[in-house]
Amino acid sequence: MLDEKTRYAADAGAQTLRTVGTPCLILDQDRMDRNVARLRERMERLGVQLRPHLKTAKSVDAARRVMTAPAGPATVSTLKEAEQFARAGVTDLTYAVGISPDKIDRVLALRASGVDLSVTLDTVEQARAVAEASRRAGDRIPALIEIDCDGHRSGVLPGDRALLVDIAQALEDGGSLRGVLTHAGASYGAIGDDAIRAAAEGERAAVVQAATLLREAGFDCPVVSAGSTPTAHFAETLDGVTEMRAGVFVFFDLVMAGIGVCAIDDIAVSVLATVIGHQPEKGWILVDAGWMAMSRDRGTAKQAVDQGYGLVCDVNGQPMDDLILSEANQEHGIITLRPGSTASLPDLPIGTRLRILPNHACATGAQHDSYHVVSGQGDRIEAVWPRFGGW
Amino acid sequence: MLDEKTRYAADAGAQTLRTVGTPCLILDQDRMDRNVARLRERMERLGVQLRPHLKTAKSVDAARRVMTAPAGPATVSTLKEAEQFARAGVTDLTYAVGISPDKIDRVLALRASGVDLSVTLDTVEQARAVAEASRRAGDRIPALIEIDCDGHRSGVLPGDRALLVDIAQALEDGGSLRGVLTHAGASYGAIGDDAIRAAAEGERAAVVQAATLLREAGFDCPVVSAGSTPTAHFAETLDGVTEMRAGVFVFFDLVMAGIGVCAIDDIAVSVLATVIGHQPEKGWILVDAGWMAMSRDRGTAKQAVDQGYGLVCDVNGQPMDDLILSEANQEHGIITLRPGSTASLPDLPIGTRLRILPNHACATGAQHDSYHVVSGQGDRIEAVWPRFGGW
Repeated sequence: MLDEKTRYAADAGAQTLRTVGTPCLILDQDRMDRNVARLRERMERLGVQLRPHLKTAKSVDAARRVMTAPAGPATVSTLKEAEQFARAGVTDLTYAVGISPDKIDRVLALRASGVDLSVTLDTVEQARAVAEASRRAGDRIPALIEIDCDGHRSGVLPGDRALLVDIAQALEDGGSLRGVLTHAGASYGAIGDDAIRAAAEGERAAVVQAATLLREAGFDCPVVSAGSTPTAHFAETLDGVTEMRAGVFVFFDLVMAGIGVCAIDDIAVSVLATVIGHQPEKGWILVDAGWMAMSRDRGTAKQAVDQGYGLVCDVNGQPMDDLILSEANQEHGIITLRPGSTASLPDLPIGTRLRILPNHACATGAQHDSYHVVSGQGDRIEAVWPRFGGW
Repeated sequence: MLDEKTRYAADAGAQTLRTVGTPCLILDQDRMDRNVARLRERMERLGVQLRPHLKTAKSVDAARRVMTAPAGPATVSTLKEAEQFARAGVTDLTYAVGISPDKIDRVLALRASGVDLSVTLDTVEQARAVAEASRRAGDRIPALIEIDCDGHRSGVLPGDRALLVDIAQALEDGGSLRGVLTHAGASYGAIGDDAIRAAAEGERAAVVQAATLLREAGFDCPVVSAGSTPTAHFAETLDGVTEMRAGVFVFFDLVMAGIGVCAIDDIAVSVLATVIGHQPEKGWILVDAGWMAMSRDRGTAKQAVDQGYGLVCDVNGQPMDDLILSEANQEHGIITLRPGSTASLPDLPIGTRLRILPNHACATGAQHDSYHVVSGQGDRIEAVWPRFGGW
């Protein structure tokens, strides 16, 4: 890794959008900073702590721009993320995916190294495993009970008092109930301001209801954690919520633009690609960014405007009339006009560079080992930030 | 990288399918060896060289089992693959994605290091760029003209004599015409033996026609390269073809099983996952393998049997009645019974380990940095083979 990083650092200064090898992932840091400032101000106004989800960025350099302080708080989706960010000095972390018993030893090791890492669970079985491991280690692992606010994924129903109390009791027998946590995953399908506002209020009400039931049953429930990028941007009140988690807001993407959470020109990541061929009679331009560079994510397929595998921009990041990456093989992308377009296919000679905005920043980011950082209209790669994957 | 490898090697011997961290990518080497032997024997019988595509494995350890000799021949989809395999001693490589002018310097560097690397192109512009770079470097870069045999992607139409000759002429002015190359990408959608046989014959006839036209025009055309996993397994004759390329045959996957190229129990890669939750009233079992571990590939969605994000097996690799990974978030997978199933949801406690067969081995592999190698029914991780990504 060090060799790669050194090479990156040495190369970055000399490279531009016209010279860097393609395909590669470009990050517009002005847009990123603006996106971060926007949500941070909103959370300050609503009096709620922002606990950004670092699963989108998976980069220490990016995380430092996203967190409100170098030590956190932050959220992670894997223990690998927790370990990487802990090594970089982040000490306040929530692992927001249901814990399995075999992962508890890694949690304990991180906690022993000084990280206040909390886990997430929604069954008595998990609570017992956490409590038992806590007793064995002499370290009360803090846990959040996951609440199902919209039928989207995991979690206890917010009004299921009996199960909430059973889990809390099992947990307190060695571990520690830190609070409740929910995620309005269904908000990604909520189109328009009113629908997202309703999802936000449903998320808030559910997690507060669960916290209230636990407190009435005599449990401390200091943390009431909610959040998704759409609901964090549209919640009108967050009464009773102590922290909001959001991840993709840092970069945004076409799915978020499609539901109205951001504008196209808020999208901070794109894939730089080079034209490698033409099939003029079919109306195709071929580029060297296929699904390996874009991911297989087709999140806009269900939206009003299907952006294919991505929206095509010129090298400066300006969207081009009706051009989308409509098909993708592993290393070939096929650019066409959008179905029904009356525009004409531009003449883009072999070697032309383009930037393609992704459906889903988390998925596209995961296909790359670094961000090539630019500023606004600048051509120069100002930095190369390594990113990591794995578990 | 070395640190990681050392750790892997040290860890592998002690780990089993019950102890290794999940999610992770499992490779059944018995199945892989059987798949490789099957196609190798077939190609020997048909008298054609196998030039395996290493874009599926992206692993030096796997490549050594797949190639007919340590030095190749082999095919790659990126120059990063060419560089990695060259470093491991592979000296006969075809880069089978259309070359862009800015990548030629890396091609020249590899060739100067002793690798017989050929490039692929389908325009006069590219041929001129390759010829000019060849003259400048004093090294005749060999190129294959890509032929479009089924309208699927890139390439010159096989009967377009004028364009073939123009490209060949431009190329020979400094570079070198090595031959013609095609890929029947549409064969992935050909269902059943007869349809695949027809795709194979179409692929063969197209590339041979182009070679014949070039030879009639006075060009040497030593290499006539065709191939895809379906056509390589179903071609009845390969008269006129000198080599076949195929990639996914090494591992196979649900898409290949869906069109009848392999059986489910030929699939050599799977994702090991752990149960992390239940939503019994919805009929859901949650696991720690979401789309980050499986990829977003939904290749079976268009097939007769939609396998969701993957087919669920027990830890030994035996498919479980009607269980599929029907939904995936980044790190959460939702297992359900297949729609219409009359089976009942099995009781799989928290911590249960499962193996999930992928839609598309290339896409799922790309989400992982190593293969955990097992043999048949064995429980022990016998080796950990690093894999690489990037460009």
